[in-house]
Amino acid sequence: MFEVTVRDHMLVAHSLQGEVFGPARALHGATYVVDAAFAREDLDADGIVLDIGRAGEALHAILGDLTHRNLDDVESLAGLNTTTEVLARAIADRLAALVHDGRLGVASGDLARIRVTLHESPVAWASYERAP
Amino acid sequence: MFEVTVRDHMLVAHSLQGEVFGPARALHGATYVVDAAFAREDLDADGIVLDIGRAGEALHAILGDLTHRNLDDVESLAGLNTTTEVLARAIADRLAALVHDGRLGVASGDLARIRVTLHESPVAWASYERAP
Amino acid sequence: MFEVTVRDHMLVAHSLQGEVFGPARALHGATYVVDAAFAREDLDADGIVLDIGRAGEALHAILGDLTHRNLDDVESLAGLNTTTEVLARAIADRLAALVHDGRLGVASGDLARIRVTLHESPVAWASYERAP
Amino acid sequence: MFEVTVRDHMLVAHSLQGEVFGPARALHGATYVVDAAFAREDLDADGIVLDIGRAGEALHAILGDLTHRNLDDVESLAGLNTTTEVLARAIADRLAALVHDGRLGVASGDLARIRVTLHESPVAWASYERAP
Amino acid sequence: MFEVTVRDHMLVAHSLQGEVFGPARALHGATYVVDAAFAREDLDADGIVLDIGRAGEALHAILGDLTHRNLDDVESLAGLNTTTEVLARAIADRLAALVHDGRLGVASGDLARIRVTLHESPVAWASYERAP
Amino acid sequence: MFEVTVRDHMLVAHSLQGEVFGPARALHGATYVVDAAFAREDLDADGIVLDIGRAGEALHAILGDLTHRNLDDVESLAGLNTTTEVLARAIADRLAALVHDGRLGVASGDLARIRVTLHESPVAWASYERAP
Repeated sequence: MFEVTVRDHMLVAHSLQGEVFGPARALHGATYVVDAAFAREDLDADGIVLDIGRAGEALHAILGDLTHRNLDDVESLAGLNTTTEVLARAIADRLAALVHDGRLGVASGDLARIRVTLHESPVAWASYERAP
Repeated sequence: MFEVTVRDHMLVAHSLQGEVFGPARALHGATYVVDAAFAREDLDADGIVLDIGRAGEALHAILGDLTHRNLDDVESLAGLNTTTEVLARAIADRLAALVHDGRLGVASGDLARIRVTLHESPVAWASYERAP
Repeated sequence: MFEVTVRDHMLVAHSLQGEVFGPARALHGATYVVDAAFAREDLDADGIVLDIGRAGEALHAILGDLTHRNLDDVESLAGLNTTTEVLARAIADRLAALVHDGRLGVASGDLARIRVTLHESPVAWASYERAP
Repeated sequence: MFEVTVRDHMLVAHSLQGEVFGPARALHGATYVVDAAFAREDLDADGIVLDIGRAGEALHAILGDLTHRNLDDVESLAGLNTTTEVLARAIADRLAALVHDGRLGVASGDLARIRVTLHESPVAWASYERAP
Repeated sequence: MFEVTVRDHMLVAHSLQGEVFGPARALHGATYVVDAAFAREDLDADGIVLDIGRAGEALHAILGDLTHRNLDDVESLAGLNTTTEVLARAIADRLAALVHDGRLGVASGDLARIRVTLHESPVAWASYERAP
Repeated sequence: MFEVTVRDHMLVAHSLQGEVFGPARALHGATYVVDAAFAREDLDADGIVLDIGRAGEALHAILGDLTHRNLDDVESLAGLNTTTEVLARAIADRLAALVHDGRLGVASGDLARIRVTLHESPVAWASYERAP
């Protein structure tokens, strides 16, 4: 199995709903360093999993809709508790949708897995992985 | 699948038993950077794998029993060759016991996997993963 | 010259005032990884610049007043444009005040320099250094 | 499951064949930080996956055949498009061959997996994993 | 004193002239992670050393002339032995020229220092610092 | 001013003398990641500060005398309280002695500064800088 990963980041504000979040219920923020990984059983004719340039641009565009914003006000996230886990899933789902639309130049049937990891601090991170 | 990871570290002395360890048979030491990862198929009602604050405190307490000590003299490790692999398993087992005792606020049946990684230097690390 | 550094972090929301900040004029957030460095010409009788434990606790307390908050609402920062540079100075000034009050167990006359660095993303950071 | 990883690096020049590579079709270069991971269900009698010293030397020797070279001229890579993915596979295959020859002191039947990851920049990496 | 740093990277091939370089006399390559730091005694009216966005774009443009190339064939570097030190100076000099031309929006008289650091591997880096 | 840095590491046990060290008075250990930096006003005829290969070998040899040992029993450190600061100075002094003996191939008169930094954990490090 092969896997290719690209990294980018976003700077966002948000607040979390629920007793468990303690001080994080207040409006605060984070730099999320975001890794998007694409796995594939075999390489294509060029010897790659997918075009890493397109993968990086896709991730950058997805994060571009979120960075420098207050996630509490972002319509596409309305109704979500924007935990690190939930954000990882939201970004992975958007990448999967781009794959399905042929925007990453690789057939979803050729991919085995998409995984998105969000690093919120040097001591905490979360990931979500799904079928493509 | 979701996975949440928390990181902490400990500074310990120890020696290793066995020809294969060469110079590491002598008493020496290491800063172990320790990552504890918890995987779960679905998120709970708050949108999380588990309370990352409690997970971090649990890891800190486990490492607190070991840090600034000579592991050769630690009773709970008696009889173990404290390789990086063995230490990873010992820490993972302690985390699993805390999960079972309900100390991390997540049912062990809800978790899919616990994995502990110990980084012993910038060029070497080891991990152990187990059912929760 | 000796220098000792301790690292901690905070997760904050804020907005910036001024055309130059473009999208960062909107409310957003950041994980600031914060390094506090203390320089000294000679070591004390224990062979240290200062008690690194007390230095770490002091930095943690200063960041504890800011983390998980919206800096736009923090009274002690009122009237400040909370750029990375300005935050670095604010934290360095608080550390210097603690040194002057004898809270770090080292005379300010014995220190040569205090420097605070704030990493806002993997590709950008800023520091401020001052006399103690 | 246990896993042990060793890290090393190489500095190489190369060019890539195919429209998809854009500017990377020209001769350029990279520092590849290379992680070699060995997984095993159970530990051996010494409490290890394998001798990490031998694993590190094996990886260093494999990279020693490639570092400070133009990969376009390396015979053992002739006919390959030396993408990060292809290089990861080439290195993993060489490690697997050494395991089979008994050069790493662990039976291939005792290992569960070999995975090689090549980091080509702070924002891009690729891995290949295979049976040992 | 304040200092702001931006980071980017380039992937280049090159060879070095001189007995001292041993295997690096052959054509090889490197990923250079490049940090550009700008120091200033006082902040401007916006509370910054300079517009970090413009600084990042300037660095990106300078590296854009070099990345994915063989430095042995780059005209603007003709006659130079492209050691890490020499490349750091070349990039710092280009940044200083941009400052002088007013392209970074800060007067060179307001800056105290420009420093460029090139990381060539996890275990080696070099920097050059100059007056602006 | 130019500066070249090489990095290596050592794994040691030790204990510290003095009330201020609290739990670190007990025998424990650390992985010290060690950076040795050499500064020079002008480059030599090859375009370098010094031969980075020789610098790396010198640092490796110095650390080779300490790694995998209990520093409490190392004769050349007898009578020293082996704090991070003191160890940084000891290593810098050994590097300076090698420079003076012509072992690094650069005249001490040509160097401006030697600085050694020891990282003891992800959140604490110390450095010592001296004339060559």
